[in-house]
Amino acid sequence: MSDDCAYQQLRERIRAGEFAAPTAGEAPGYIQANLVAVPKAYAFDFLLFCQRNPKPCPLLEVVDAGEVAPRRLAPDADLRTDVPRYRVWIKGELAEEPTDVSAVWRDDLVSFLLGCSFSFEKPLRDAGLDVRHITCGRNVSMYRTTIPCREAGVFAGPMVVSMRPFLPRDALRATLITGAFPQVHGAPIHQGNPAAIGIGDLAQPDYGDAVPIDEGEIPVFWACGVTPQAALLTAKLPFAITHAPGHMFITNIQEEQLQWFSESVC
Amino acid sequence: MSDDCAYQQLRERIRAGEFAAPTAGEAPGYIQANLVAVPKAYAFDFLLFCQRNPKPCPLLEVVDAGEVAPRRLAPDADLRTDVPRYRVWIKGELAEEPTDVSAVWRDDLVSFLLGCSFSFEKPLRDAGLDVRHITCGRNVSMYRTTIPCREAGVFAGPMVVSMRPFLPRDALRATLITGAFPQVHGAPIHQGNPAAIGIGDLAQPDYGDAVPIDEGEIPVFWACGVTPQAALLTAKLPFAITHAPGHMFITNIQEEQLQWFSESVC
Repeated sequence: MSDDCAYQQLRERIRAGEFAAPTAGEAPGYIQANLVAVPKAYAFDFLLFCQRNPKPCPLLEVVDAGEVAPRRLAPDADLRTDVPRYRVWIKGELAEEPTDVSAVWRDDLVSFLLGCSFSFEKPLRDAGLDVRHITCGRNVSMYRTTIPCREAGVFAGPMVVSMRPFLPRDALRATLITGAFPQVHGAPIHQGNPAAIGIGDLAQPDYGDAVPIDEGEIPVFWACGVTPQAALLTAKLPFAITHAPGHMFITNIQEEQLQWFSESVC
Repeated sequence: MSDDCAYQQLRERIRAGEFAAPTAGEAPGYIQANLVAVPKAYAFDFLLFCQRNPKPCPLLEVVDAGEVAPRRLAPDADLRTDVPRYRVWIKGELAEEPTDVSAVWRDDLVSFLLGCSFSFEKPLRDAGLDVRHITCGRNVSMYRTTIPCREAGVFAGPMVVSMRPFLPRDALRATLITGAFPQVHGAPIHQGNPAAIGIGDLAQPDYGDAVPIDEGEIPVFWACGVTPQAALLTAKLPFAITHAPGHMFITNIQEEQLQWFSESVC
């Protein structure tokens, strides 16, 4: 399989229901995205929540109500079928986790695609760093913190973070490497001492899987696009659809194109 | 006057009606911002317009309806009095250009503050470059182009650009210097050949003043925060308030703080 069609073949398998697993390490080099789809009545509040919290919610594209293809990220995709696993939220509660949401999709949904930190894992690995959850074949570890997001309308809540363990010197390299990718969460927001951001036990993640942390390693925390799912719990929207944590939307855009993606004009 | 209080003293003079001129070169080193205030019914469309057009509309802060102080940029300011000159728009037409909009302000206005390229003129001058409109004591030259913005709801229209003439080698330096400030328009979007972006005569700017271009210099064009004013002409909102081109809102934030402004979490 050539690199050029890695994202297409993976998306076809996802659409066909043949791939419903976490996407870390898949289609390496292609930008992966978090999905949040909310009724248009709540779209201003959510767009503002992203604007005010760019570290956990770096917005790559907003898809208008009535549309299901992201024009810039993946014009050939369909947001109703092309995420490996979804979460359907009713009145702020998780109702189901299907692999296709065509049957429950609504024409008033505005879809938000937020950058995912899986997108910078190829550069980390290319630099010789061990990305533990990929090495172990697990989903990334994610935790709710006590860091509050800035409020916007009905949306508020704690920041969720992803964690990767590194030796202190490798944490420095990882900071520089990921800092170059602000659209997919950029540099870490914390390292070391999990208790300082309200994480009690690294072995008990709130989302995803635990991973082993070796002697001498420190946990390094990146802002995570699951943060809106924590906000959905309190916002209690009548209806919303998101991806399931770690089960991301694969875009047509490569990491090298990200800077130009923000710089480009029509 | 110390640098520390330059922005406060200028804003007090503006508030008192003693300063109603273009702000290029004033309170050097402090971030300046474009103002667009629209009724809440149009706020989603405008916020989305900014998200889709980050080069002309780099959003620094959104002020909720009912509030008049930008919490992060200038919590001690009042958006109704602290812009040197405003434009009041009624049904898509420019109705008046007052220096105070307290009498016409409405509680349903959501205010958007967009980064302004005046903010990176101190770094340009510190590097020894001649910023012509400051040297000449004029407003910057601004032009409507034929570059279309990406549409968002009722908002669409051409990109507006500001122009600074430089020798070709200085244009390269200016590109690197301003590229480090994406929140205030960042790197240029065009240089040389004005006709290629639909500008017929550099001596006839659509906004601001013309400036002399010396032998051997080329015009360098930056995306401009007056772009929303071109979009307001066609969107024909019942009511809107903006700054008058070149007459910017002065923030409490210094250029050195900009990167952290985007990176910070609560």
